[in-house]
Amino acid sequence: MSELFWPGEHRAGALFSDQALVVAMARVEFAWLQALQASGVAADVGLDWSVQISADDIAADAEAGGNPVIPFVTTLRDRLPEHTAQWLHRGLTSQDVLDSALMLCVRDVLDRALDEMRRQVAALRALADAHRDTVQAGRTLTQHAVPVTFGLTAANWLTGVLDAADDLDAVRGSLPIQAGGAAGTLAAVTALAGGAATATQVVATFAAELDLVATAPWHTNRRPMTRIGDALAAGIDACGRIANDVLVRSRPEIGELAEATPGGSSTMPQKQNPVLSVLVKRAALSAPFLAAQLHAAAAAAVDERPDGAWHAEWAPLRTLGRLAVVAASQTADLLAGLVVRTDRMAATAAAATDGLLAEQRKITGSSGELKEYLGVTDALIDAALVRADAFLAKDE
Amino acid sequence: MSELFWPGEHRAGALFSDQALVVAMARVEFAWLQALQASGVAADVGLDWSVQISADDIAADAEAGGNPVIPFVTTLRDRLPEHTAQWLHRGLTSQDVLDSALMLCVRDVLDRALDEMRRQVAALRALADAHRDTVQAGRTLTQHAVPVTFGLTAANWLTGVLDAADDLDAVRGSLPIQAGGAAGTLAAVTALAGGAATATQVVATFAAELDLVATAPWHTNRRPMTRIGDALAAGIDACGRIANDVLVRSRPEIGELAEATPGGSSTMPQKQNPVLSVLVKRAALSAPFLAAQLHAAAAAAVDERPDGAWHAEWAPLRTLGRLAVVAASQTADLLAGLVVRTDRMAATAAAATDGLLAEQRKITGSSGELKEYLGVTDALIDAALVRADAFLAKDE
Amino acid sequence: MSELFWPGEHRAGALFSDQALVVAMARVEFAWLQALQASGVAADVGLDWSVQISADDIAADAEAGGNPVIPFVTTLRDRLPEHTAQWLHRGLTSQDVLDSALMLCVRDVLDRALDEMRRQVAALRALADAHRDTVQAGRTLTQHAVPVTFGLTAANWLTGVLDAADDLDAVRGSLPIQAGGAAGTLAAVTALAGGAATATQVVATFAAELDLVATAPWHTNRRPMTRIGDALAAGIDACGRIANDVLVRSRPEIGELAEATPGGSSTMPQKQNPVLSVLVKRAALSAPFLAAQLHAAAAAAVDERPDGAWHAEWAPLRTLGRLAVVAASQTADLLAGLVVRTDRMAATAAAATDGLLAEQRKITGSSGELKEYLGVTDALIDAALVRADAFLAKDE
Amino acid sequence: MSELFWPGEHRAGALFSDQALVVAMARVEFAWLQALQASGVAADVGLDWSVQISADDIAADAEAGGNPVIPFVTTLRDRLPEHTAQWLHRGLTSQDVLDSALMLCVRDVLDRALDEMRRQVAALRALADAHRDTVQAGRTLTQHAVPVTFGLTAANWLTGVLDAADDLDAVRGSLPIQAGGAAGTLAAVTALAGGAATATQVVATFAAELDLVATAPWHTNRRPMTRIGDALAAGIDACGRIANDVLVRSRPEIGELAEATPGGSSTMPQKQNPVLSVLVKRAALSAPFLAAQLHAAAAAAVDERPDGAWHAEWAPLRTLGRLAVVAASQTADLLAGLVVRTDRMAATAAAATDGLLAEQRKITGSSGELKEYLGVTDALIDAALVRADAFLAKDE
Repeated sequence: MSELFWPGEHRAGALFSDQALVVAMARVEFAWLQALQASGVAADVGLDWSVQISADDIAADAEAGGNPVIPFVTTLRDRLPEHTAQWLHRGLTSQDVLDSALMLCVRDVLDRALDEMRRQVAALRALADAHRDTVQAGRTLTQHAVPVTFGLTAANWLTGVLDAADDLDAVRGSLPIQAGGAAGTLAAVTALAGGAATATQVVATFAAELDLVATAPWHTNRRPMTRIGDALAAGIDACGRIANDVLVRSRPEIGELAEATPGGSSTMPQKQNPVLSVLVKRAALSAPFLAAQLHAAAAAAVDERPDGAWHAEWAPLRTLGRLAVVAASQTADLLAGLVVRTDRMAATAAAATDGLLAEQRKITGSSGELKEYLGVTDALIDAALVRADAFLAKDE
Repeated sequence: MSELFWPGEHRAGALFSDQALVVAMARVEFAWLQALQASGVAADVGLDWSVQISADDIAADAEAGGNPVIPFVTTLRDRLPEHTAQWLHRGLTSQDVLDSALMLCVRDVLDRALDEMRRQVAALRALADAHRDTVQAGRTLTQHAVPVTFGLTAANWLTGVLDAADDLDAVRGSLPIQAGGAAGTLAAVTALAGGAATATQVVATFAAELDLVATAPWHTNRRPMTRIGDALAAGIDACGRIANDVLVRSRPEIGELAEATPGGSSTMPQKQNPVLSVLVKRAALSAPFLAAQLHAAAAAAVDERPDGAWHAEWAPLRTLGRLAVVAASQTADLLAGLVVRTDRMAATAAAATDGLLAEQRKITGSSGELKEYLGVTDALIDAALVRADAFLAKDE
Repeated sequence: MSELFWPGEHRAGALFSDQALVVAMARVEFAWLQALQASGVAADVGLDWSVQISADDIAADAEAGGNPVIPFVTTLRDRLPEHTAQWLHRGLTSQDVLDSALMLCVRDVLDRALDEMRRQVAALRALADAHRDTVQAGRTLTQHAVPVTFGLTAANWLTGVLDAADDLDAVRGSLPIQAGGAAGTLAAVTALAGGAATATQVVATFAAELDLVATAPWHTNRRPMTRIGDALAAGIDACGRIANDVLVRSRPEIGELAEATPGGSSTMPQKQNPVLSVLVKRAALSAPFLAAQLHAAAAAAVDERPDGAWHAEWAPLRTLGRLAVVAASQTADLLAGLVVRTDRMAATAAAATDGLLAEQRKITGSSGELKEYLGVTDALIDAALVRADAFLAKDE
Repeated sequence: MSELFWPGEHRAGALFSDQALVVAMARVEFAWLQALQASGVAADVGLDWSVQISADDIAADAEAGGNPVIPFVTTLRDRLPEHTAQWLHRGLTSQDVLDSALMLCVRDVLDRALDEMRRQVAALRALADAHRDTVQAGRTLTQHAVPVTFGLTAANWLTGVLDAADDLDAVRGSLPIQAGGAAGTLAAVTALAGGAATATQVVATFAAELDLVATAPWHTNRRPMTRIGDALAAGIDACGRIANDVLVRSRPEIGELAEATPGGSSTMPQKQNPVLSVLVKRAALSAPFLAAQLHAAAAAAVDERPDGAWHAEWAPLRTLGRLAVVAASQTADLLAGLVVRTDRMAATAAAATDGLLAEQRKITGSSGELKEYLGVTDALIDAALVRADAFLAKDE
């Protein structure tokens, strides 16, 4: 976490911070205690939620056992009353607590990312509609192609964002608990509960307490983790594509777009750098490598719980999650303030008319005005707006 | 494509070969012709499917335009009768043809991969059921943990395969056509058709002919491509995890598993190498990087059609697709012939009983037999078998 | 290998083809026979170099042992006279033959890549010198900065190419043999030779025959492999950066550069796409992932010879090697024919003079002509030319 | 930076922390001031090194300009006396300051990593020598091969570490300054200095002050950056390979190695997990993706200074640098305390004698004792020890 090495990183706030993880681990342990009690496995555990643990209390001891759960449980147990402490973590293993806690952190990330994407969708909806008839030069392989409208560009950006948001939303709805015990058999809680039926009930209550999906233990089936990474990366891809277009079109020779609050230079007074786009592009260059680390970890799983592959997931998951939030937020700001220079669009398109209509002449034998060779542009914009409205209505 | 640099690569046969791509491109162009005719845009195009083009005819000319569609269309046009040739490719752009053709190739890959996964599921179902009570040492972070059964190991492998198969199946059902024309507006076909309504009908017929999903042009919205890559990589991850376990457990000091037909050495006569597992692990080490290339390309999209990012997708998509088929096939063979040495499992577990039941003693104060500390193992196996049966029944 | 999925791939010719690997394996086995004979370990082995093996002869059997060496040796042995056959491969293991053969293939790749880079250097040298005084707008973060010259742009491209070439040249000079026998002890040849001293001599002769560097066995020390990958990727990075600049500056709104033979479109007659740049950018997007696979393989090495990590190197090494050659060749063509539009450069710079000299006014209080605010540009160009001349002189 | 998501991360201390970067930026700015003064460009700048800036002072403002240098310079200027402030940063651009400061941070990382590698080398030297005659089963593709000694294993690990250390040392000796001004022409300092000769002298003094190498501006020639990443990744690869071997050989069924201070479990009292190896393996799974990000950034460079590719380097460079230090430190501890169970090695080898000598029988017709079939093992160990001694002597 660093705003110097990663400008704008403060936008992710405390998401996935060390302290956020500690709080999430506490929620997981307490949910388990409640489930033990609700199922009659434990007598009144006298749960006291007021106990506080800070990341600093346990950080130094995380290395000894290879994960932060061991010192967390030890420290928490010391601070709980005896009748609670004796039931703490009984039946769980470190990976149960950490994976479940990571899912809680991921959920917060997804909620925030989806909020930012709603801002993007609202801004893009407005741009697509407002510039439905703003003709500009279509560009393919860097060269002028046929005419399009800036409304269509915005609609295409919008579709990309909506595709990504759909996937993030689906992932959010399927985040699983982890509960398997030492080697994925739930042996300890079954022994404590006196049978598999009650143990299964404990797990179901645990999942309900955390509002996560109850599933079979996935200690070495890491698809839940790669699904998260794939969807986060796709969200950043969608932002990156928008940034690329803004970067090209805010070049002074093109000048069709500009950021509302461009950045300055340490030496050149005239500079108006498209800084948000630059920072979003930075994220887009990084995300594929972070998501791929999760696949590499999944592919290296072994035994009942892995010897390093699990540990390799935590840092890239955190970085990718925060990156997605920051990129989504910067993109939302970028779009909300985007300066659209319709005069430049019109002038460039007009000057390029001959080339832009060459296909039309070839296909139909003649050409007319640019605005008459826009195909189904209107219908494409309409379809994107309909999707946007449905998306925005969903959470009202 | 090379069996020397990639042993077993012949298992992927002609999938995604150059010639397969040529055939797919021909199907796409012909489907478009049929759609033009069916919608009344073209008169009888007199479609003659017998024309043949080989990859060699066009390979040398692919570089000049940067993609193989341009020489393909030129060559095909020369070999068609005039009344057909004049309508060929009208209203399409290179990316429409290539993206759609790639989807056809991907579908063949997915069908074959899913077939291989059905073989895996059948073999794993049998192993999980047969070894439901075969107690073995659970292992976490390389060390003995609590007892499990080999049936549970197989059930966990099975769950991983089913998760991956579900995702591949979902991708297969959503493969889109690409049809946008020069800059994604369908301007040319709209001009030919005399309006947006008929153009939209052409696109719908085109999609129906190819049995692909009709969607808005996605020239620079590359989520359809990254979804494919993500799911293929996840399929390979699931295979890799199985291979990792077989590699560890076929070490002579453990000896609980063995391949049916181990490989020899060029110099050591005694060697019994777990070759299929080695080759699957090889695939698992590579796949994350291939899928990530598709995200990097998606994130680099720009303009109405990109200046290199699109081109960067083709080779990794092909390699990843073939890799997934080969890895799935090798894993299916591996599982079908897997030698399970229950005597070694029993001996190791028995010798390790004291440690394997240490948790039980800590939790409950006493310990008994290994088979009594298996928690919900039976229920987990049952749940996996139910999913397997549903999966296998689906396509009968 | 595919010109359809990878336009321009024919430029790499037979480099690293399956047959090239077979020929290289034969060279390695024959060099070993010669070394055995020269050291007196074997009597006259009656070496007959005329025996021919095709990749097709052995491809189908490569999977059984997990690598192509086993069927290669079996097939070769069958075709050699008995007195030669009995000594074939004695003392070697598969990895010795394959790693050494890969080094021979890599050397051919490096030689070809360096040839193409010499073409680049010659073209860049000429551009840097010819456009020493061609003032253009400097651009940073997409916006106009201070004036530069196109000669400096070319000199910077040149420096990038020379840095990459230096690294490739260093790698070329340090390519090692692999000779360790079954587990890296050279036990078999030591037994045959009657002692370590003679065994060491066999290895030295073997290295000399192949003109590779004699080193300790590196079966699981894979730095030689990652060094190759890192240097090849750096070579492609240098090409990619040139392509990026050409792509931006050949946009019609900028128009300062153009390719000599731009590509057409399948539908738009006016199109002049910068196709070589597009294809080079495509390579640049892919290379980092290929080189990283070699690191992932190196990091997964285990035991005396690895269980999949070694196998994972072959395909990405081959692809990366060919990619480097193709990208270098396309970049050389791109540069040799680059169209430099000095009128556009002059016009854009003139129109932007006020901004381009804003720093000068801030720093010095006044501003004059663009050409007076070029700092040490001349000296930087001169330094690059000196390096270029030294590089070009080296192999004359 | 997080010990919870990355256990053991505290080992990297303040290396590459936000504050370390601020201090490095101050050193760079002050070195430039000194160079201006020493060359007579500025009169007495009255340098006061006591001014303090904290990362928190500038973090919030880093986003506005896209990098931390702009708020750093503004803040520093405010705190300096007027006659110093007026010369601060004159002639530099943000990238000059940040790239140079990153090189200072990298140097600290390299120094620390090399220190840890010296510890590794010392431990490995002792192991290789002490276990020169400790026969064990050689293992290839997971199966027993021919006999080796544990001394040879240690010598091979040692060679891997020395190869990596050589590369890191070479990189350390070639870390460049960055000094190009706004667009790489040094125009501002040339104007201030009244000519190119004095400007060049300023740059040389600047480099000397920082003890970095004076080079041409490399704003878009990013090989210096990728060289660092490649070498750091190679260092982690070497550690990973050691960890892989310890993980396999500390499995209870093999039991030939153990960590001195294994980790416990949150639930199983008997657990003795090889935690350091697990954490090193975790680093080895991640490093290739971090180094690859630097190549992707290098390949995306454009213009005189890039629009996101530069920004994408900072975070992965920092993470990779710290990762290398942590992994090197954990590996050094692992090796220093490694428990070598010669009894288990002997027992396993003895039981496997028949297979381990099968090659010998095939090659020579007979077999004897394991220790007689070790080839040039002694010579290989000796050669590694000689390299180790030279390496250790270098900095005494």
